[in-house]
Amino acid sequence: MIGKIIQPELEAFIANRNFAGLQSVFKEMLVPDIAEVIRDILPNDRAVLFRLLPKQTAMETFAYLDVPTQRALLRDLAQNEVITLLNDMPPDDRTALLEELPGTIARDLIGQLSPDERRVAQGLLGYPEESIGRLMTPDYLAVGPTMTVGAVIDNLRLHGRDSETFDVIYVVDPRGILQDDLRLREVLLAAPGATVGSLLDGKVASLNVNDDREAAIQMFHHYDRVALPVIDDDGILIGIVTIDDALAVAEAETTEDIHKFGGLEAIDTPYQSTPVLTLVWKRAGWLVILFIGEMLTATAMGYFENEIARAVVLALFVPLIISSGGNSGSQAATLIIRAMALQEITLSDWWRVMRRELLSGVVLGAILGGIGFMRIALWSAFSPIYGEHWFLVACTVSFSLIGVVTWGTLSGSMLPFILKSFGADPAASSAPFVATLVDVTGLVIYFTVASIVLAGTLL
Amino acid sequence: MIGKIIQPELEAFIANRNFAGLQSVFKEMLVPDIAEVIRDILPNDRAVLFRLLPKQTAMETFAYLDVPTQRALLRDLAQNEVITLLNDMPPDDRTALLEELPGTIARDLIGQLSPDERRVAQGLLGYPEESIGRLMTPDYLAVGPTMTVGAVIDNLRLHGRDSETFDVIYVVDPRGILQDDLRLREVLLAAPGATVGSLLDGKVASLNVNDDREAAIQMFHHYDRVALPVIDDDGILIGIVTIDDALAVAEAETTEDIHKFGGLEAIDTPYQSTPVLTLVWKRAGWLVILFIGEMLTATAMGYFENEIARAVVLALFVPLIISSGGNSGSQAATLIIRAMALQEITLSDWWRVMRRELLSGVVLGAILGGIGFMRIALWSAFSPIYGEHWFLVACTVSFSLIGVVTWGTLSGSMLPFILKSFGADPAASSAPFVATLVDVTGLVIYFTVASIVLAGTLL
Repeated sequence: MIGKIIQPELEAFIANRNFAGLQSVFKEMLVPDIAEVIRDILPNDRAVLFRLLPKQTAMETFAYLDVPTQRALLRDLAQNEVITLLNDMPPDDRTALLEELPGTIARDLIGQLSPDERRVAQGLLGYPEESIGRLMTPDYLAVGPTMTVGAVIDNLRLHGRDSETFDVIYVVDPRGILQDDLRLREVLLAAPGATVGSLLDGKVASLNVNDDREAAIQMFHHYDRVALPVIDDDGILIGIVTIDDALAVAEAETTEDIHKFGGLEAIDTPYQSTPVLTLVWKRAGWLVILFIGEMLTATAMGYFENEIARAVVLALFVPLIISSGGNSGSQAATLIIRAMALQEITLSDWWRVMRRELLSGVVLGAILGGIGFMRIALWSAFSPIYGEHWFLVACTVSFSLIGVVTWGTLSGSMLPFILKSFGADPAASSAPFVATLVDVTGLVIYFTVASIVLAGTLL
Repeated sequence: MIGKIIQPELEAFIANRNFAGLQSVFKEMLVPDIAEVIRDILPNDRAVLFRLLPKQTAMETFAYLDVPTQRALLRDLAQNEVITLLNDMPPDDRTALLEELPGTIARDLIGQLSPDERRVAQGLLGYPEESIGRLMTPDYLAVGPTMTVGAVIDNLRLHGRDSETFDVIYVVDPRGILQDDLRLREVLLAAPGATVGSLLDGKVASLNVNDDREAAIQMFHHYDRVALPVIDDDGILIGIVTIDDALAVAEAETTEDIHKFGGLEAIDTPYQSTPVLTLVWKRAGWLVILFIGEMLTATAMGYFENEIARAVVLALFVPLIISSGGNSGSQAATLIIRAMALQEITLSDWWRVMRRELLSGVVLGAILGGIGFMRIALWSAFSPIYGEHWFLVACTVSFSLIGVVTWGTLSGSMLPFILKSFGADPAASSAPFVATLVDVTGLVIYFTVASIVLAGTLL
């Protein structure tokens, strides 16, 4: 809202490099909006502008920046400024930054942190990549069940400023084992003299520190929480994951799935800041694999070369037929991959899905077959383009379309199941992958149908 | 966590239809887990089981269920039970349910709500479909700036139970215009005698009630909030949107984008519960459009029929060449569509993107062209399959691949820009759509290259 009102003023200040003006505008702005300005400004002005921010705002803004901008800024700041920023950063955001830095630089920076923060940073980076441990922060509030509500609130007043999310308070037993979580509102609504223990219902959802980070996304979706506690294998509370980090992970995972489905390796840096050659490299891999697979079409076509020589008209419909198989296959694969990602269908549903898709494939094939027949009949009514045997050619094309679309639909829907049952990612059954698979078999179907229908006439 | 321990017990109770046992297990379970059991149980047992839940749990569980299960349950419950549930539901969840019910049923149910809830329900349903208004709830806490912190906390104790999220408190002036938001923790950490006004910084992010619901997702991502206030055009606070609803919308929008990209109309019901014929219908539309577009390949091939008759070897590489164009096009479209969705690139970047993709296309085309050349050379060393002019054929295929892949990459990357500049959804430049576009032009490129390279020899 504020953004819209001050936008023109802001742009003028940036254009004129009026840093004093910018400083005064920043006072009125929310941290995420300041972060956006810092991100979008010319790289040369970034450090100058950043140094104008009050200390607390600078720290919060830095934590909000995306990792590439953080890295760029670190390069432009003095060593002591960098260390101050890293000491003050929320530990989970700091992990996200450190894991993207080259190993030697990260080690050097960690070595210069304060002893407490160094211990925290090393602990978090000790968890496996893409694990819950890498997402969590140890800044949370835990209390024992014998504490009174009044004491908890006094405690909050004392320590609350340190904890990233104290809308939720965790209850642990004397060994540190997680017992329950309490929303701040529950505490506030209780009588000050009541003990924490009297508020517990013993129901708590938690994440295991070693689980894959995808588990966090599913838990947040399922339980509608803004933070989830993280426990180790003994049930001891060791941190929390907040929903903003889960959202960022969810976005990255979706990008990965979409890239895979589009037939390229997942690219985890923004398009504009990825060097062209990296992009080419990530695309070349799958493109070459698909190309080599697609070479089988040349082999298959070679096998039917004599048929083509005798009836050139057959060649005319090759692209139409194989693309129809590819399109119906990529539709089916899309439906199944997305339904699997949303956990609407599981591996055990394969048989139900197969029956549905078989039916769908036949109906869709019949629709396209009908249209294809009419097209050939219509053209033949006005021109000799498809020859005297146009009726048989039309039958060949129609029957082939039914077969190819049914086969494409079945392949597209079953491939995600096959990949998943081998432990691979179903999203790897990309549209181009399915299309390639169906192209080769589609040709075989087409020329086989042709050799039956046209035997004795054209062939 | 609890889920795993009691799973076998739970399954046994369900298998034996031991409802008393289930009732005792439900006491230990979190509401989202109970909702999952209710969703997955046999439809005939659903109402029986649901009636066993204590009133408060039943209400919360119902609000957690997905809309199809809610509808199924409503059919099985008595009219007075239905009305009680609807009266007690959070207004935002109720809107989501009512907008999915047939108009006459929804009107009938709304008519039977209590006068207060009826006014709320009618108000929310009065906002346009897919608007912020449809997502919001009027259950929030607003206070004036002159109130003391102590009075706010007393107020919370009194009214807090009604509001969906009072982790955030909103501050409004006497006309009801939104001034600021305060996190509960800020209030708690302040001295009880301080006024609310002294805590304000005047910075607040808000949604407009008439905005598209996609705006809410972007705001939640940008501002890392768990709830955002909703204002009308006069700046008056009229509701809040909570992050769980924004997450649900984000998931639905992603599904829509993925379906579009896979070349079918968006399907907003789960795969398993969508009737097969609905699925066929949603797929047939695009499949037929693509098929009709792809018919141009038959026209193009017909135009080159004489060339094919003279050099049948040309036909053998048709699938290989057009599919390479389609694959590189779908890679490029995927990258650009996702980067647009993440707002990494905007319309004004088209020129920068075009230069990058032109370079990528040429490099990728050269890689595939090189492999294609080697393949033909290798096969020709051991067999006469590609004839005496195999070298010229190899050149034709290689040059065509460079042209087709470059063209595919350019089309795939520019199509999302073209669609977006016409106000259409860039995700509609689906993999099959790009492939179809590139197939037709790819054939023209191939046969044109052939007529130049092979002139005087094969043609």
